[in-house]
Amino acid sequence: MAKVKALKCRECGKEYPIEPIHVCELCFGPLEVVYDYEEIRKNISREKIEKGPKSLWRYIDLLPVEEPTVGLTAGFTPLRKAENLGAILGLKNLYIKDDSVNHPTLSFKDRVVAVAISKAKEFGFDTVACASTGNLANSVSAHAAQSGMNCYVFIPANLESQKIYGSLVFKPTVVAVEGTYDDVNRLCSEIANELPWAFVNINVRPFYAEGSKTLAFEVVEQLGWRAPDAVVAPAASGSLITKIWKGLKELVKVGLIDSMNTRVYGAQAEGCSPIAKAWKEGRDFIIPVKPNTIAKSIAIGNPADGMYALQVTRESNGDWETATDEEIIEGIKLLAETEGIFTETAGGTTIAVLKKLAQRGAFKPDEVVVVYITGNGYKTMEVLEGHLHHTVRIKPTLADFREKILARVD
Amino acid sequence: MAKVKALKCRECGKEYPIEPIHVCELCFGPLEVVYDYEEIRKNISREKIEKGPKSLWRYIDLLPVEEPTVGLTAGFTPLRKAENLGAILGLKNLYIKDDSVNHPTLSFKDRVVAVAISKAKEFGFDTVACASTGNLANSVSAHAAQSGMNCYVFIPANLESQKIYGSLVFKPTVVAVEGTYDDVNRLCSEIANELPWAFVNINVRPFYAEGSKTLAFEVVEQLGWRAPDAVVAPAASGSLITKIWKGLKELVKVGLIDSMNTRVYGAQAEGCSPIAKAWKEGRDFIIPVKPNTIAKSIAIGNPADGMYALQVTRESNGDWETATDEEIIEGIKLLAETEGIFTETAGGTTIAVLKKLAQRGAFKPDEVVVVYITGNGYKTMEVLEGHLHHTVRIKPTLADFREKILARVD
Ligand SMILES: Cc1ncc(COP(=O)(O)O)c(C=O)c1O
Ligand SMILES: Cc1ncc(COP(=O)(O)O)c(C=O)c1O
Ligand SMILES: [Zn+2]
Ligand SMILES: [Zn+2]
Repeated sequence: MAKVKALKCRECGKEYPIEPIHVCELCFGPLEVVYDYEEIRKNISREKIEKGPKSLWRYIDLLPVEEPTVGLTAGFTPLRKAENLGAILGLKNLYIKDDSVNHPTLSFKDRVVAVAISKAKEFGFDTVACASTGNLANSVSAHAAQSGMNCYVFIPANLESQKIYGSLVFKPTVVAVEGTYDDVNRLCSEIANELPWAFVNINVRPFYAEGSKTLAFEVVEQLGWRAPDAVVAPAASGSLITKIWKGLKELVKVGLIDSMNTRVYGAQAEGCSPIAKAWKEGRDFIIPVKPNTIAKSIAIGNPADGMYALQVTRESNGDWETATDEEIIEGIKLLAETEGIFTETAGGTTIAVLKKLAQRGAFKPDEVVVVYITGNGYKTMEVLEGHLHHTVRIKPTLADFREKILARVD
Repeated sequence: MAKVKALKCRECGKEYPIEPIHVCELCFGPLEVVYDYEEIRKNISREKIEKGPKSLWRYIDLLPVEEPTVGLTAGFTPLRKAENLGAILGLKNLYIKDDSVNHPTLSFKDRVVAVAISKAKEFGFDTVACASTGNLANSVSAHAAQSGMNCYVFIPANLESQKIYGSLVFKPTVVAVEGTYDDVNRLCSEIANELPWAFVNINVRPFYAEGSKTLAFEVVEQLGWRAPDAVVAPAASGSLITKIWKGLKELVKVGLIDSMNTRVYGAQAEGCSPIAKAWKEGRDFIIPVKPNTIAKSIAIGNPADGMYALQVTRESNGDWETATDEEIIEGIKLLAETEGIFTETAGGTTIAVLKKLAQRGAFKPDEVVVVYITGNGYKTMEVLEGHLHHTVRIKPTLADFREKILARVD
């Protein structure tokens, strides 16, 4: 595979062959895929990409997969100009990258899983697994079904019922662990050491994580090959935000855009904000926290890529902000009422943070700002209970309609 | 608007100007949009379409809208080859057209609503409304929010809670009518006569319905400009199936394909199958029924376009089939377990019917068969209760994992 050179330790730089490994044996640093950008530069072009499939695989030249075999229709989700929300926030060029309709399981995780399971098949695994806050489990379950692999997904036992059903329907083994996501993750790391399973976000993590770069690639293409001035994205483990940044830099490296000057802003739920807290306190290390928020999909108290996520905001001149549970629900409603997009708690967090950032002048009115909506509202519907208007019940008669609806004072 | 000639009565042929009207004043027949295909033929080409937006609007030349203003990213959903399900059914070329990830509200209704509300804006309405079995209400609510219009959606009071929340979040007035969809529809027809509201599926219906043609257009393009040998689609009012057929014929008329020989198969829930029943009994008229099925989104007992849907299967040499509630749930599970796609009850109906048709030899093994999945499983999640495997609950320890998972005999 000419485009991919090796795995490389982010800490000490030691290189490893392309294998299902994720930790440096010298320094325990995380491994990352490194590419031969000179080689890729020769093969890639805007025209070639635009003629490619209408999925994230149009960017296969920058992904660590030879031949995709699963998740063939993931990605290439809409980028929508948000005129109404923009007007409220004083932003003339606000865009929503909408992964709430990602295929097939309605979150950005379909990107990373399409890459991870295609890679796991290349490696010869017959069983896939993951430690998940919900969306990843849904996506791994769906893609395992598609590819006929055995599947075990591990989740905290207290997840939203929608997220649990959204895995069960694909018939994996769903292991509900009594504990937090961090307990689940620790257990899965131990299992990954013992069994020949492809844990997409543990031993296959270096490949998995690359899938998130496509959120940067697609946005730049959809803006007409122009990097945004700022992006706002949610962070749990910190992988997504780290890879958006890597993706933006790669576009310059391979010559698809001349330059890039994007500020990256991170969003966390106040009840689980180890990265944002480190940032505000000027630390470059993470102090783990115990999650307590309705935003369960981003409730990771001990984020694997937290340090690198901090580096991204430092390098890009970005910032971090948090949202309380109440603000998260307001964020969900604000996006729905202004733009007709129904997102889950992670998206509510991101919108609430976007609002705070806009209000404190983080963006100039003309700047191109892209907000990443990474999941769908149907999956966390239960948080809205008691927070919406009611239906108005009537009999099927014009008289009742006139009395209950037309005469009603709102 | 050169491409659109007039509205025309399907029964007596009387022509009307392009206005928000839907019934012939002479014979009470439904009005339909007629086009100047000679004119369109001159302007349209595969190349032009392929360069168009990645949405249903790439087919604007065959839609009754001048300038789309809402729902700009609806449509152009994935067409996926279904190898696993195909193998089970003995079909080598089975494809799924997957509107369960349509943007923004996860059903094919985003197509018809994008067209209807763009048209309603052209007509100058400031209020949109609909009579709905759920999905249409979700979509109208979302698009009204996007376009800043007032919004009233009318639904049967006993809908799935997910479908109700999925409208409420966009903050329309949700009117829960004590009765069936047919009661809702009758009430809305009366209201449409009194108030200056754009009921997308009543007074704007001729325009609204045209949006479904894009489900035919996209499939043909995605197959490499080739019409399938057979399609299977669900029917409630019968509009969708009627317009898929119209769309296929139009592609030949404007020269985008040379010929088309597609058989159209209709799927209904056994508990509400007035069209399928008419077909089986050799009638060319519909006898209304009282719905009794879990497939609430397609529970229309008195289908407005039922007669025309019958004509489609007659003309195209197709057929009708029904599925019981139990078969519908099995259909949902079959699609999820084989293809990793989670659909709602309407999709479960369609898959169950596909299976029956395949088993009784309706398709040759090599034929290109396309099945339309028109809605998302998260919206009817409650029907799965008691029908899925359970999670396995463990403590976060290797010991418990070994005991409860590894040692488990399934
Ligand atoms: C909807 C959603 N958004 C964002 C994230 C954050 O991803 P990361 O762990 O890469 O920071 C997650 C993680 O599960 C998620 O489910
Ligand atoms: C998911 C779904 N599929 C199919 C249909 C059938 O559409 P039609 O009324 O055009 O036959 C509906 C109608 O509401 C629907 O919600
Ligand atoms: Zn190292
Ligand atoms: Zn007439």
